[in-house]
Amino acid sequence: MNSDNAIPARGFHHSEYERRCAAVQNNMRDAGVDVLWLTTEADIHYLSGFLTQFWQSPTRPWYLLLPQSGKPVAVIPAIGEICMRRTWIDDIRTWSSPQPQDDGVTLLIDTLIEVAGNSPVIGIPQGPETYVRSPEKDVQRIRRGLPGAQWTDATALIRSVRQIKSDAEVGKLRHICQITSNAFATVPDIIHGGMAEAEAFRQFRIACLSAGADDAAYVVGAAAPGGYEDIISPPGNHQLSHGDVLILDTGCVFDGYYSDFDRNFAVGAVDSATHSAHQRVWDATEAGLASLAPGVTCAEVYAAMQEVMQPANAPVSDVGRLGHGLGIQLTETPSIAAFDKTALRPGMVITLEPGYSYAPGKLMVHEENLLITDSGYELLSTRAPRDIPIIH
Amino acid sequence: MNSDNAIPARGFHHSEYERRCAAVQNNMRDAGVDVLWLTTEADIHYLSGFLTQFWQSPTRPWYLLLPQSGKPVAVIPAIGEICMRRTWIDDIRTWSSPQPQDDGVTLLIDTLIEVAGNSPVIGIPQGPETYVRSPEKDVQRIRRGLPGAQWTDATALIRSVRQIKSDAEVGKLRHICQITSNAFATVPDIIHGGMAEAEAFRQFRIACLSAGADDAAYVVGAAAPGGYEDIISPPGNHQLSHGDVLILDTGCVFDGYYSDFDRNFAVGAVDSATHSAHQRVWDATEAGLASLAPGVTCAEVYAAMQEVMQPANAPVSDVGRLGHGLGIQLTETPSIAAFDKTALRPGMVITLEPGYSYAPGKLMVHEENLLITDSGYELLSTRAPRDIPIIH
Repeated sequence: MNSDNAIPARGFHHSEYERRCAAVQNNMRDAGVDVLWLTTEADIHYLSGFLTQFWQSPTRPWYLLLPQSGKPVAVIPAIGEICMRRTWIDDIRTWSSPQPQDDGVTLLIDTLIEVAGNSPVIGIPQGPETYVRSPEKDVQRIRRGLPGAQWTDATALIRSVRQIKSDAEVGKLRHICQITSNAFATVPDIIHGGMAEAEAFRQFRIACLSAGADDAAYVVGAAAPGGYEDIISPPGNHQLSHGDVLILDTGCVFDGYYSDFDRNFAVGAVDSATHSAHQRVWDATEAGLASLAPGVTCAEVYAAMQEVMQPANAPVSDVGRLGHGLGIQLTETPSIAAFDKTALRPGMVITLEPGYSYAPGKLMVHEENLLITDSGYELLSTRAPRDIPIIH
Repeated sequence: MNSDNAIPARGFHHSEYERRCAAVQNNMRDAGVDVLWLTTEADIHYLSGFLTQFWQSPTRPWYLLLPQSGKPVAVIPAIGEICMRRTWIDDIRTWSSPQPQDDGVTLLIDTLIEVAGNSPVIGIPQGPETYVRSPEKDVQRIRRGLPGAQWTDATALIRSVRQIKSDAEVGKLRHICQITSNAFATVPDIIHGGMAEAEAFRQFRIACLSAGADDAAYVVGAAAPGGYEDIISPPGNHQLSHGDVLILDTGCVFDGYYSDFDRNFAVGAVDSATHSAHQRVWDATEAGLASLAPGVTCAEVYAAMQEVMQPANAPVSDVGRLGHGLGIQLTETPSIAAFDKTALRPGMVITLEPGYSYAPGKLMVHEENLLITDSGYELLSTRAPRDIPIIH
């Protein structure tokens, strides 16, 4: 595994999107939903292939409608028309945006009625990990413009499909995880004591790009004497010093697909508490890996990792879960958590991310990425060493 | 100008946030709003200083409440507590998230009542360029949990304050624009005919980081024979070839502040239509710059640039506007557009971004970043040459 160094082709065959839409539409029919109204980058990207960093601009709303049969219909700002034409979508309706008086509202209402009639059941994702990316006033106008419509939650209709990755998706995820592993392997050569945190993070970003990532979109972490306590802050001016523990957590991107794993390093030397804590989260990951099989629930995988960390008699770090799904977002469903009874299925790509507080103000978090297979799992990240590496 | 090469300090003095909150609270009092409920990265970052890339994970909701007086109150997942403690916020309430059964909903309702009573007027941004980053089902639960509340649109209360940058904010924007200019200056050395688009974009990202950017968050563009028609797509496998026109548009980041401008290049040679089109958008920018002064409206700046492009007898590219505000987001209000009558004020940082279609399927878009001053403007980006540069 991880031996395939060929760069996967960008994009997908149209059959990939046909499969995704057919699966969601099957769920729609079972749930009696006539049309989905989608507003977020991930949902629109997933069903149309529309890939752009332009989502970083909050200015314009973007909409995709999925009827119960047939292809999705795009209702988007004209600035995105050419980019959308590169996808498998045929029916693309545009307006000149921004246009605050009517920023696609009338066009969306008219298209919804054309696609699903005057009394449609309209599904929108309303559950955990979703939001509606449309100004609230426009949402209200759209609801008023469709007095005969019923509105229902579509979260589960899409989530269950997105959780299972196709071979082509796995190919992209395997590739970006390998790139990220290769970048982490260079850390002892590029990050040294005396460097400012911000400079270390910058050099690591460059390493990810040099290894072949399209982007190192997410680079967070910390370095602190004898152990860190925060894993989501941006880097500061702190100079890496002898005795620091450094964590780098990264989400790199290839063709819209994310890796998400971290690595820990000790600067110059490591104390025994930190050394043991690293071994413990590594062992917890090992226990998590050993538990993986189709049919096993996320809650059971969580318990397997917790079992290893509990003897430390220390509370789990308050992050709420010990891993999550991975794909076109840095974090996807399911959650490796006590509350999540989702059964693992072949094709799921997840992270295992055990972490705990091994001393007051000191966290240790470790993470790997993997694919659930018929027989168990395939590691997508190159397994970290059990002993925390020392850099100089 | 642009001669200050010192790296600005990260973060701000607390007085910066006191000023921002006081200005928003003044607007709240005028509008009779008791408390703001904020849910998005930009709004929370702006009033608290909470800076993290963790927003890329859609899993957890994050909330900030701004009462009519006093400091904001954070209601956030426990994973963010340490990062929030680095800010000026004192009152931080956390829950272990994700927790789908009650992901902060009860805590938020209780805190809202504590802060603003049982019958508060609650302001949330509902207008253009906003959205509510909370699952729709949670929004409904929160509304049901506050039956005595009135809800009102708070878009304008924050927008008018955010549009005016402090000297400290301008320092960060000046710095990242200078870094981005320096990175663009290296393009003739790092991008060459024969390179795949994706590789060219990757090398440019590395150049931005090497020049000192924390991140090259936004890198889009295109290269196409004799002219491009799409400015928001990701790079593909197309090899840069003699006669291609290349546009690179980038948003780089320093300490949470964005540059946003583009540069055009001709590969090997340039045809006369493209050469003229570049001169025309450069001239349109010059006209836009000449029009800048406090009190002039965005619509008037738009008209000044349109006047230069109109004689080309070609329709403006359908992007809806010719520039926008800039700051902690890649694009902010106001819009340089016919519909936007916002008067320019000293301290506004904006882009001028004239573009038009100079032949079927051929766009030319040009962009500069600048600060509105008492006497006119200060360029933050290093002015592009009027003639499109040729790279080999």
